Amino acid sequence: MKLVKVYVTLKNSVLDAQGEAIKSAINTMGYRKLNDVHMGKYFELNFADDYQGLEEDVDKICDDLLANPNIETYRFEIMEDA
Amino acid sequence: MKLVKVYVTLKNSVLDAQGEAIKSAINTMGYRKLNDVHMGKYFELNFADDYQGLEEDVDKICDDLLANPNIETYRFEIMEDA
Repeated sequence: MKLVKVYVTLKNSVLDAQGEAIKSAINTMGYRKLNDVHMGKYFELNFADDYQGLEEDVDKICDDLLANPNIETYRFEIMEDA
Repeated sequence: MKLVKVYVTLKNSVLDAQGEAIKSAINTMGYRKLNDVHMGKYFELNFADDYQGLEEDVDKICDDLLANPNIETYRFEIMEDA
């Protein structure tokens, strides 16, 4: 099995309202030394062992489905034989 | 700055309906050799450099705010001097 971990986050130019809300909630809990919070999505995709061209295909899947390229960026890592 | 990356995922015993929907969407796009999809949340927290006891505090923040311990698990990694 090939495990692919995908991380989708908002572009830096886009206001991360959820992140701001979480930061303020954490501050309210008493943790003051927090500068910044960003929130994103995390996906684990399990592909068959004999998958060919996985990297290009995951790239397409991210662009077309998992991320909104207008406001989000993504990165992924492929773990062989997970 | 100390960057903490937090990954929150559903427990294995909990039905991941979003993951199932994404799997079926990816299959429909023509990628057939996909076994399994899990969806979760991803957080980046930036703390001050001189933060003491970061690991315990992040543990508490995850338990109390970022994850629902009834249905979710989390893991995090602390990147020094990010």
